[in-house]
Amino acid sequence: MQESNSSNSPSLSHINAKGEASMVDVTRKSVTQRAAVATGKVMMSKATFDLIVSGGHAKGDVLAVARIAGIQAAKKCADLIPLCHPLMLSKVQVDFEPDESQSQINVRALCKLAGKTGVEMEALTAVSVACLTLFDMCKAADPEMVISDIKVQSKTGGKTGHWIREQGTVNNGASAC
Amino acid sequence: MQESNSSNSPSLSHINAKGEASMVDVTRKSVTQRAAVATGKVMMSKATFDLIVSGGHAKGDVLAVARIAGIQAAKKCADLIPLCHPLMLSKVQVDFEPDESQSQINVRALCKLAGKTGVEMEALTAVSVACLTLFDMCKAADPEMVISDIKVQSKTGGKTGHWIREQGTVNNGASAC
Amino acid sequence: MQESNSSNSPSLSHINAKGEASMVDVTRKSVTQRAAVATGKVMMSKATFDLIVSGGHAKGDVLAVARIAGIQAAKKCADLIPLCHPLMLSKVQVDFEPDESQSQINVRALCKLAGKTGVEMEALTAVSVACLTLFDMCKAADPEMVISDIKVQSKTGGKTGHWIREQGTVNNGASAC
Amino acid sequence: MQESNSSNSPSLSHINAKGEASMVDVTRKSVTQRAAVATGKVMMSKATFDLIVSGGHAKGDVLAVARIAGIQAAKKCADLIPLCHPLMLSKVQVDFEPDESQSQINVRALCKLAGKTGVEMEALTAVSVACLTLFDMCKAADPEMVISDIKVQSKTGGKTGHWIREQGTVNNGASAC
Amino acid sequence: MQESNSSNSPSLSHINAKGEASMVDVTRKSVTQRAAVATGKVMMSKATFDLIVSGGHAKGDVLAVARIAGIQAAKKCADLIPLCHPLMLSKVQVDFEPDESQSQINVRALCKLAGKTGVEMEALTAVSVACLTLFDMCKAADPEMVISDIKVQSKTGGKTGHWIREQGTVNNGASAC
Amino acid sequence: MQESNSSNSPSLSHINAKGEASMVDVTRKSVTQRAAVATGKVMMSKATFDLIVSGGHAKGDVLAVARIAGIQAAKKCADLIPLCHPLMLSKVQVDFEPDESQSQINVRALCKLAGKTGVEMEALTAVSVACLTLFDMCKAADPEMVISDIKVQSKTGGKTGHWIREQGTVNNGASAC
Repeated sequence: MQESNSSNSPSLSHINAKGEASMVDVTRKSVTQRAAVATGKVMMSKATFDLIVSGGHAKGDVLAVARIAGIQAAKKCADLIPLCHPLMLSKVQVDFEPDESQSQINVRALCKLAGKTGVEMEALTAVSVACLTLFDMCKAADPEMVISDIKVQSKTGGKTGHWIREQGTVNNGASAC
Repeated sequence: MQESNSSNSPSLSHINAKGEASMVDVTRKSVTQRAAVATGKVMMSKATFDLIVSGGHAKGDVLAVARIAGIQAAKKCADLIPLCHPLMLSKVQVDFEPDESQSQINVRALCKLAGKTGVEMEALTAVSVACLTLFDMCKAADPEMVISDIKVQSKTGGKTGHWIREQGTVNNGASAC
Repeated sequence: MQESNSSNSPSLSHINAKGEASMVDVTRKSVTQRAAVATGKVMMSKATFDLIVSGGHAKGDVLAVARIAGIQAAKKCADLIPLCHPLMLSKVQVDFEPDESQSQINVRALCKLAGKTGVEMEALTAVSVACLTLFDMCKAADPEMVISDIKVQSKTGGKTGHWIREQGTVNNGASAC
Repeated sequence: MQESNSSNSPSLSHINAKGEASMVDVTRKSVTQRAAVATGKVMMSKATFDLIVSGGHAKGDVLAVARIAGIQAAKKCADLIPLCHPLMLSKVQVDFEPDESQSQINVRALCKLAGKTGVEMEALTAVSVACLTLFDMCKAADPEMVISDIKVQSKTGGKTGHWIREQGTVNNGASAC
Repeated sequence: MQESNSSNSPSLSHINAKGEASMVDVTRKSVTQRAAVATGKVMMSKATFDLIVSGGHAKGDVLAVARIAGIQAAKKCADLIPLCHPLMLSKVQVDFEPDESQSQINVRALCKLAGKTGVEMEALTAVSVACLTLFDMCKAADPEMVISDIKVQSKTGGKTGHWIREQGTVNNGASAC
Repeated sequence: MQESNSSNSPSLSHINAKGEASMVDVTRKSVTQRAAVATGKVMMSKATFDLIVSGGHAKGDVLAVARIAGIQAAKKCADLIPLCHPLMLSKVQVDFEPDESQSQINVRALCKLAGKTGVEMEALTAVSVACLTLFDMCKAADPEMVISDIKVQSKTGGKTGHWIREQGTVNNGASAC
């Protein structure tokens, strides 16, 4: 990962030798093109799923609201996560894939920038807040919804080059960025 | 749920008959004592779990940073989720329970207020951002972590009185608030 | 006007006798149900109008994005306008009326709260930011758009009761609130 | 405009082929010196105009408050307008020109940066919020004020080079940046 | 102190028995009229003092900018200080008293609200940010300025009634609020 | 100082010849590595000091909360201080040194970036908000605390090169950046 220290053993980001929080120093890192894709999902009852998606199309503004919330949250990442560096995203995209068989909405976010730090936290934040926003609009109908499987699918740029999540439940995102 | 419309069939909050986003009108609702508890978890490798928790105690500021991030995020809920009403939380608490057997950190948030709307979105937001913050501090060591099972455990106050999530994967939160 | 001083002559809000900015003191004012409606418009070329509205329906997310931006801006009013009191909106609604004959989009916002201060600034802010957001999405096609006629149409609640804007561009002020 | 797509027909910024909101990708755009000037005005009664401007000079902090509000709003543009890219303004200037004959305050904002995107939205936001702030300070005396004619006067930098608004009520801004 | 626990010995606010951060629960506290006054100062060279204050009057917008910054910062207190409760200030006032003999600017802030928690943190935040803003405008001329003596002068409302700071730097605390 | 105008006599930053606020234009300044160190302190009663620091170690999350608040405040500097340029900090560090003999907590912040403007305001803001946060957690026990001696210790980068505060109470920060 581009923000690890230089020792061989993995360690915590943003935590110094005394166990204190301290934003990683990226002053001398070079600017490279970076991208990250994260995914997650909101699981709901069949009735709630049908409220959002009918006849194969989402009703009105529902997904639009969640999409905007996700995009705006990506821009607020450094304000929400204490040790994230402020950065200037050059692209944010949030997509939804309603999965009728599982009665869930899959959420995917892509973030890009030309900068010194990776953007996976921005992508994860976009997914999280898009999921929360879907929850907010459906909570009267279905308070038992669950938000799950929020994770990074791929990232490019920086020291580590192109990283893709391995197998499992992953849809690998190879073409994503 | 306290924000549903008065018809018998469940419907989407904040979406009007034309499918347009519109913040629910709570002007004439009465102020009651309200509370909500939400939970979630960050699943990680055993090595990463050990980086955070050693000898039964979390190292340094790690959990403190995530706790503060969760508390602050609860206060930002109306800024993050487009149709949430602004409100004045009277209590926010974020707790962590490292679960060594599952190699995961369980996160729980309690929010309270005397107000016109429920606070489950605030509790869910606190849990989500606390999870994201843990991810941020561990991402160099373990980019494959997964944030999961973010859900409401219980809520009190408002028209619906005391609601507790039904069993299943639920730890029922009966004593929670 | 609920925030004017008690003298007979009209004066500036939030400016003390020395000409210094000072937020009006509303500590002892009573809480009443309040509402305000504001309107505005974005004037554009016929070609741009057709890009947004085709066949009588707005294309995709365009109006949804502007609606969300307006709603969120209403909640940020006290952060944007230095001397506005923070308050807890209980309802925000933003509507659009495409006017093909004039090649313009009319914007209308309604804000409500039970509180100590009027909500006309919140409604005006919602209209302004909804207009700016429409501009942002159309600016590549039409950089000569104009945002105009942002004004309060009506307000209710507080000392002055129900105020409705008079015909024309009249400024009488005296009976206003 | 610098953010248009490459086709010959004009199209909406930030809206993809499916009609979904999606922040324009500027990752690979080059950094150039950019500037934009926007203008607007607040029309008011003669009595209100005289409250603000007496003897040719504005009273106390009135214009200073509106100026600061406009400058700060320019910095918040990406937070207010959902699909705006975050950027680092290198200069913001807000000027007022009281026009006694029309009983109105003219507002003008200049924004500059060395970056990948234009700054006309920042200039328009500065003008809008400066106007709203003037409204806020005068609303007790004159609730019938109108904010109008918010538009871009000129912009420089990026693919389109130097663009100046044509004819009409325009003061052409040629010397502005 | 209105937020202390019920034991006889003083203790830390917002820190539970395990040493973890936890926002104090004010859900069941009653709403009372509250006010707080805080003060501070910026000490500078004689030359810098003269740049700001000439002929007994501050030059242009200098104090106006710092005043607005202080007022807005009071409204952001809960966003800046992690465990502060969000609240709705009903009055904020920031005053400056240039003290030529000491070559310093004295700053004083008054905050008021009808609410469940004291407003001394809001007053202290207003003073701090007003001082920082003065520093920002003078830093090119005088990088050696010092901001000092930020403290609460008085507070009213809540369980403890009217508290006024004692002479000197005395800390008694016992009777404090 | 890197932001002074080019004349020989010192002058106010961000204030133009008419006395109006106007953000300094840094569009054409070159990007250099910059750092700044600021310090301050919170003076308290011996009893309060002992509440925070016992046996030589701070209790639980107390200093962690203040550290996070300081780091986040540095990132909010341009939002708090009206004429500060937005910038992208590449490093923020906040340290505490409990001084038992003086019954005070010393606070020190280091900020870094590769950019066009100095970061001393960010460092001063981090120190101020860390001090305010300590105050917030101790105010029930000791309302008479005083925040003092907030100042810049050193700065590097930009036109002025390496500047170190002279003499006095200064710990000179030579090794700091």
